Amino acid sequence: MTPSGTVPSWSGWGDPARVPTLPAPVLTLLEQALGVTPALAAAVAMTGVSLPEPDLPGGCRDELVALLGAEQVRDDRESRIRHTRGKSTSDLVRLRSGDAADAPDLVVLPATHDEVAAVLRSCAQHRVAVVPFGGGTSVVGGLTPRRAGFSGAIALDLRRMDRLLAVDAESRTAVLQPGLLAPQAEEQLGAHGFTLGHFPQSFEYASIGGFAATRSAGQASAGYGRFDEMVVGLTVATPQGCLELGRAPASAAGPDLRQLILGSEGALGIVTAVTVRLMPAPAQRSYEGWRFEFFSDGMAALRRLAQDGPRPTVVRLSDEIETAVGLARPGQLGSASSGGCLLIAGYEGSPPDVTARREAASAVLAGCGGEPQGDEPGQEWRRQRYAGPYLRDALLDAGAFVETLETATFWSSLGALYGAVRTALTEALTAQDTPPLVACHVSHVYPTGASLYFTVACAQADDPLAQWQRAKTAAGDAILRAGGTITHHHGVGVDHREHYAREVGPLAVDVLRAVKGRLDPAGILNPGVLVG
Amino acid sequence: MTPSGTVPSWSGWGDPARVPTLPAPVLTLLEQALGVTPALAAAVAMTGVSLPEPDLPGGCRDELVALLGAEQVRDDRESRIRHTRGKSTSDLVRLRSGDAADAPDLVVLPATHDEVAAVLRSCAQHRVAVVPFGGGTSVVGGLTPRRAGFSGAIALDLRRMDRLLAVDAESRTAVLQPGLLAPQAEEQLGAHGFTLGHFPQSFEYASIGGFAATRSAGQASAGYGRFDEMVVGLTVATPQGCLELGRAPASAAGPDLRQLILGSEGALGIVTAVTVRLMPAPAQRSYEGWRFEFFSDGMAALRRLAQDGPRPTVVRLSDEIETAVGLARPGQLGSASSGGCLLIAGYEGSPPDVTARREAASAVLAGCGGEPQGDEPGQEWRRQRYAGPYLRDALLDAGAFVETLETATFWSSLGALYGAVRTALTEALTAQDTPPLVACHVSHVYPTGASLYFTVACAQADDPLAQWQRAKTAAGDAILRAGGTITHHHGVGVDHREHYAREVGPLAVDVLRAVKGRLDPAGILNPGVLVG
Repeated sequence: MTPSGTVPSWSGWGDPARVPTLPAPVLTLLEQALGVTPALAAAVAMTGVSLPEPDLPGGCRDELVALLGAEQVRDDRESRIRHTRGKSTSDLVRLRSGDAADAPDLVVLPATHDEVAAVLRSCAQHRVAVVPFGGGTSVVGGLTPRRAGFSGAIALDLRRMDRLLAVDAESRTAVLQPGLLAPQAEEQLGAHGFTLGHFPQSFEYASIGGFAATRSAGQASAGYGRFDEMVVGLTVATPQGCLELGRAPASAAGPDLRQLILGSEGALGIVTAVTVRLMPAPAQRSYEGWRFEFFSDGMAALRRLAQDGPRPTVVRLSDEIETAVGLARPGQLGSASSGGCLLIAGYEGSPPDVTARREAASAVLAGCGGEPQGDEPGQEWRRQRYAGPYLRDALLDAGAFVETLETATFWSSLGALYGAVRTALTEALTAQDTPPLVACHVSHVYPTGASLYFTVACAQADDPLAQWQRAKTAAGDAILRAGGTITHHHGVGVDHREHYAREVGPLAVDVLRAVKGRLDPAGILNPGVLVG
Repeated sequence: MTPSGTVPSWSGWGDPARVPTLPAPVLTLLEQALGVTPALAAAVAMTGVSLPEPDLPGGCRDELVALLGAEQVRDDRESRIRHTRGKSTSDLVRLRSGDAADAPDLVVLPATHDEVAAVLRSCAQHRVAVVPFGGGTSVVGGLTPRRAGFSGAIALDLRRMDRLLAVDAESRTAVLQPGLLAPQAEEQLGAHGFTLGHFPQSFEYASIGGFAATRSAGQASAGYGRFDEMVVGLTVATPQGCLELGRAPASAAGPDLRQLILGSEGALGIVTAVTVRLMPAPAQRSYEGWRFEFFSDGMAALRRLAQDGPRPTVVRLSDEIETAVGLARPGQLGSASSGGCLLIAGYEGSPPDVTARREAASAVLAGCGGEPQGDEPGQEWRRQRYAGPYLRDALLDAGAFVETLETATFWSSLGALYGAVRTALTEALTAQDTPPLVACHVSHVYPTGASLYFTVACAQADDPLAQWQRAKTAAGDAILRAGGTITHHHGVGVDHREHYAREVGPLAVDVLRAVKGRLDPAGILNPGVLVG
């Protein structure tokens, strides 16, 4: 169910009722500036989806039914379609065309760590690939198993493991099950007076286990940290046994193995419990807008705040293009902008803390050339903070191609990385006769550097998958040449695997394969993801 | 050389001239309360040390000379003795008795990453164990290789790799070589206006590479963070090739492999460069003392500061015993104390930041029952902050046994952990007719928990090594039963290996062995350390 109680879209994002109608100026812009022509065919209905016959060793299915009960082992058409791939634009394009070739043979819904462990042992024995499935919001192919070499593939859906297991108010920690979705986690922690403070754009549909597996970073990372900074303990089921990691806030007892599981994307084990550190639920929230004439001025201001403080809870800076087309404010897409670059600063905490940080940060922003735009742009951003993916659905419906990608590097390289990725995307798509609009924002800042998040929109070519693949490869190549990381918060999945291997080098890949070989000798855990 | 230019002690800590003379009341306390009798024998002179004949395959030595030059391949008596073991009390007791059975056959001094890599390849081929040697300050047996199964053992001394390679003032990062000692690093970074902010008790003799390899935490961790939080990049030489880790402040590109090397204690590779994040050198430092009636009150105050801020740069709280005997102020050991528990709070930064944090933190401390003691105790602590190990040398000279150990856990378990370790140490040593004095302080605080650092003093039994082994095992057992980590900042080495394996479990040990098997198939890197 979506938060409003409707049935979620299987071929788009979340609640279908929230897909906006594009205003006329946007349609005109798409047509005149990008050459977008209306889509030839709407997305197919679910009944029109082409689904392969389930093909799993009979003994495996029987074992899974014996372990979990028939009700929790599903191979009905809808269950399989709803566990096919994630939510990248390429995923959606294929689903909209009725292609569910990557559907799992079966969907299983274990309810406990021991059930997860038993499923893994059974699948290892039968050489059946296992794709852990939380919110299903991967945008990097993290839910598309490689089937070659396996006798079948199942989705291991964690939705029944959705409880807040314990709160330690004195230590400010909580133990969460992996299938708990972020909104429910916030609601339940809120009842204890706490917040996790993790609000990625996928917030409404993403799960705690997914945050851990993908090393997620939320929109409020400046104030609350990245998810990997929030995790103090992990329980992990693997085909070879259980890992229990994290006995203290910090330790010198060997390498920090929590950080080996965080970001392992289901390829090393399945996270069955996460102990997180909590923050007090904020009594006050204050969001506002600032205008900078140039992106570089705004970046300099962000650097000042990140290095010398005070840090806002949320800080994000749109470049000139993103500001001009209103992508920073999806609810007002296409409406007039005052030019320059829009910066959103949000402050959450106790009233005196919010006042003090806002005052001090405002002085820094003004000192760097920022012009205050009042609260309205901040409040508008906050209202629309999770709406971006709905806009994508509307643009796909209109015949456009739109996708995002992101990276990060150190401050001294950030400007060059920005230019390199913009150029690569523009050239790769222009060469295909689909010149793009490339917009960017900075939304995660650190003392030593920051992230860059790009949104690309263009006309769909005849083969949009190949079209995007060429652009994406060019962008990845540019990122590596400029010294950036191939992904700051989306993860590696299948889509980034080759660039990831180039980023960390063959010896690091071999190290991860050695770890996988020990924990998952049959290689059944999310095959093809991360290190293949 | 020591900072004052004298020759460092080979069987004690640092500069022999700084070993204090114990005041009469301390000697009386030792004798009357602990039953310490004057030492039967003083430490032997270096000439009295018993050293095994060097025993290395001739081909290996020739190769190393060809690689590094004869001057950088040393097997003279003094070089070998000075690379025998680290600085734990057990290490010193053995050295003081003239036992250098663990001396390396050879000491090599490479000057570059490529030379380190070549040494590793040669030693792998000849099955010669390699012990990376930075400052030599390990207190957990991290420099004592297992020789069984190897044709020899060498110390790989990194002192010639002692340069600051690069400073990126915009990103606030610097690239340091591993053999750079902490004081020189601070001095060179200070010339650029920066500080690393890492000040462990071993500061005067410890190296950057050692900090990385052991996941070090300094006395100012509340303000500047732990060393593992300071590292943004690592270059690592292994027998199988090079790892280059860290392209961005944060990334979702797979597990954070930097955190697999940090804390690997030379068992997975040799760190040949460390990129660290920098902080502005503080313009002002302000240190002061507070008194709490009970340790538990002080711990509650620390928790308030750690969770709700503001965080002092340094914060440490001595328990009633440590306060009473003046261990918090080694320079005034044995002088009268006003009872209760001494808390030291230090603030470093810009003058307005120091003023603001000190005022706000003081309000918290006073609100929790703290009584301000003025600046003098803080300044005294700062002057004496690295003096603890000299006091140990004096106590050993006087015939006492003194050693430290440390742990950490979450706030809700901290009181129970404190009691459990105190009881275990007291019972284990009392059972040996050497009832101890057990003192403790908290010196590292986090939002979710804190560390505990114990100092134990008692009379030396006839076999002090066995005496301490029994006490240490009892303490380690108590730590694990109480849910703590076996080490918060000393590392695993050889001494904690068994408890470490129990802490993380056999599957985690196997994971590390799989990583080691890939990076170091001949197992030559610091054998016996961490996972054997």
